[in-house]
Amino acid sequence: MSGTIGVALLGAGNIGSGVIAALAAGAARYAARVGQPLELRRVLVRDAARVRHGFRADQVTTKIGDILADDATRIVVELLGGEEPARTYIEQSLRSGRHVVTANKEVMAKFGATLLQVAHDHGVRLLYEASVGGGIPVIAPLSRDLLANEVSAVTAIINGTTNYMLTAMAQQGADYEDVLAEAQELGYAEPDPTADVEGIDASFKLAVLCGLAFNVDLAPADVAREGITGITAQDIAYAHELGYVIKLLASATLIDGEVAATVRPTLVALSEPLAKVDGVLNAVQVEGDLVGRVIFEGPGAGAGPTASSVLADVLDAARDVATGRRPLAFIPRRAVRVRPPEEHEARYYLRMTVQDRPGVLGRIAQVLGDAQISIASFIQYEVPDAPEGTADIVFTTHRAREGALTAAIRAIEQMDVVLEIGNVLPMAG
Amino acid sequence: MSGTIGVALLGAGNIGSGVIAALAAGAARYAARVGQPLELRRVLVRDAARVRHGFRADQVTTKIGDILADDATRIVVELLGGEEPARTYIEQSLRSGRHVVTANKEVMAKFGATLLQVAHDHGVRLLYEASVGGGIPVIAPLSRDLLANEVSAVTAIINGTTNYMLTAMAQQGADYEDVLAEAQELGYAEPDPTADVEGIDASFKLAVLCGLAFNVDLAPADVAREGITGITAQDIAYAHELGYVIKLLASATLIDGEVAATVRPTLVALSEPLAKVDGVLNAVQVEGDLVGRVIFEGPGAGAGPTASSVLADVLDAARDVATGRRPLAFIPRRAVRVRPPEEHEARYYLRMTVQDRPGVLGRIAQVLGDAQISIASFIQYEVPDAPEGTADIVFTTHRAREGALTAAIRAIEQMDVVLEIGNVLPMAG
Repeated sequence: MSGTIGVALLGAGNIGSGVIAALAAGAARYAARVGQPLELRRVLVRDAARVRHGFRADQVTTKIGDILADDATRIVVELLGGEEPARTYIEQSLRSGRHVVTANKEVMAKFGATLLQVAHDHGVRLLYEASVGGGIPVIAPLSRDLLANEVSAVTAIINGTTNYMLTAMAQQGADYEDVLAEAQELGYAEPDPTADVEGIDASFKLAVLCGLAFNVDLAPADVAREGITGITAQDIAYAHELGYVIKLLASATLIDGEVAATVRPTLVALSEPLAKVDGVLNAVQVEGDLVGRVIFEGPGAGAGPTASSVLADVLDAARDVATGRRPLAFIPRRAVRVRPPEEHEARYYLRMTVQDRPGVLGRIAQVLGDAQISIASFIQYEVPDAPEGTADIVFTTHRAREGALTAAIRAIEQMDVVLEIGNVLPMAG
Repeated sequence: MSGTIGVALLGAGNIGSGVIAALAAGAARYAARVGQPLELRRVLVRDAARVRHGFRADQVTTKIGDILADDATRIVVELLGGEEPARTYIEQSLRSGRHVVTANKEVMAKFGATLLQVAHDHGVRLLYEASVGGGIPVIAPLSRDLLANEVSAVTAIINGTTNYMLTAMAQQGADYEDVLAEAQELGYAEPDPTADVEGIDASFKLAVLCGLAFNVDLAPADVAREGITGITAQDIAYAHELGYVIKLLASATLIDGEVAATVRPTLVALSEPLAKVDGVLNAVQVEGDLVGRVIFEGPGAGAGPTASSVLADVLDAARDVATGRRPLAFIPRRAVRVRPPEEHEARYYLRMTVQDRPGVLGRIAQVLGDAQISIASFIQYEVPDAPEGTADIVFTTHRAREGALTAAIRAIEQMDVVLEIGNVLPMAG
């Protein structure tokens, strides 16, 4: 083989610019590693009039047709983000016989199974390392390095914004609203933080990880999701006294052929590696039958790290072009029953505010006991600034079924001595 | 393509048995993922008379020639360990046109560059994920996932025995000899612990990582090596007061095209992720220009984890056989100047025992100052159980050249008030 391998970019924002700059800076090295030089052919943008650096004006287009009409383009890199037109462009590129590299978690979470099938049918690859965990190698290790394993669980911190916020709350004893404002000032949180703080972003990424780890077709809506907006400084302090930190964990387990997937604030024991992943860092822990537990940790966002993952995929696809590799065996993803939250089992943390009078604890314990929920520990706290005669009670339970717990809590909520049910959070492990 | 892909094993010990068991248990899954079934053809052992499980007596051989004569064998898995005959068998297998998968750190450290060239010349692959970090994906991520980066540093905890011992010393305040005895009892340390505690094992693994990360031809002897036998409970306690733990770090950096590589007890700030890698766990941190820092953490030894890595390579090679992939572009490793320890630069920790009398500190500080070594902090300790009138002094320095420091320490050693130079340890970062 000779000549160059043409690459087209869809999107020239922050990450796109990073990819273009790295492609130029690393050109000689990449050519040596692939065996043929890469050539940036065209860049699709929304607004062709805007002046950009790193490529010529005649490379700019606003039409996907221009890219699909270029025979020299063998790899299409999708960095538009969002559902449309990204999904359509990816599918058109695959159907045209081009490899596609994408950083799009939403498209991969919602349409990954279908698009991977399209790629297979057309003898090309759809690579998506950058869709989860920024620069951290996660997708390729699951696809290759852990392939000999039956993966039983994936547990991850895959949203940097919320991890930054929870870390700041723990370190400063600050409340949610304060750290959100701080995170927004620092640019770690968006002006509208919903996608991050409600766990939507993490649920997309978990759906992608799940699909790959268990080879199942799982939609983002199958992920039981709870954000961090209800977490208080008190919860974090109580958790710490119990030997835990609170993390927004994205967690998926395979149990008897069914999948339980949640994105939820979760108590993680201080001794666990994931408890030590602080700030904007991301980490993905995989459990397999042979390997036990391995953890991949690093920067989960940013132009450089994301370009690192995008280019790893580009180079991999380019090597396939250069060596004429035929597509690998393909196993379509299987449909799977997703366990609803009420069937999940875990240990739980419960915080509630009660009237501080004799017999209250006994009545609550009775309700939990009737529901077959066994209490592992409880602590009663005086609450500073709270009305006289009230107290916080924190329970932790032994392993329980969430449905039973929810029913018991509904009953407890009805008790006149119970002023407020605070948080009900699972505990990892 | 159809038919099976033949696999031969050299060695049927602990890891070999794990690989054989996993190959049998995962047969259907592996066949689906490769596109063709794998078939265990022959197993080379030292003693053919010993009864073994997992394969038939007629599969056993003591002669490599039997394996090389079998046309159906396309992949040879070397699990003998040690230099010979492993090296010879690997080379013969590659020259016969077979892919080779090895877990052999010693052969890869000493002969990796040559053997990778042989593999390339014969159109086959030499895969060695299991040679470093047990079950942790490290080699493949460096080869593929971080390929777009210029790697500037690799910093690793890659010997479980010494990490277990240093962790135990820190947690129990115990001395080296005590935790060694404990580690030997638990099977974490060998009856002759030399290869582990002197850093030999880690130096092999670092040479392998270095070769790959920087694409250089680096011998284990190029790694400046110091074991943990001289580390005392006092050092660990002093380090802790300064905000550090002591880890046996394997560290390689690329500076102006030259490589500095050390395996050495090193102070790691408590806030660093590597400081939190405890017990027998291993972790490898890679710094690249695009990605920043990523860390891979997990079990660094054991039959299951090692089989996970060996089989990942076997499946990868098998996919190449199944899809007829031609070998990738190959860049021979370049010769590199290795910086001798006296040219290394770091911050340093110095512990010495001195006579506790006026002016001592000033005289020592003077010698360091004359050598252009700037003191960052010092603490003087009373030493329990030490002879009256003696004290421990602990200095930390700002960034200094090790050669200058060594010369200064030689001068300090000559001073009548200095009773003993304890440890001189680099500080990471």
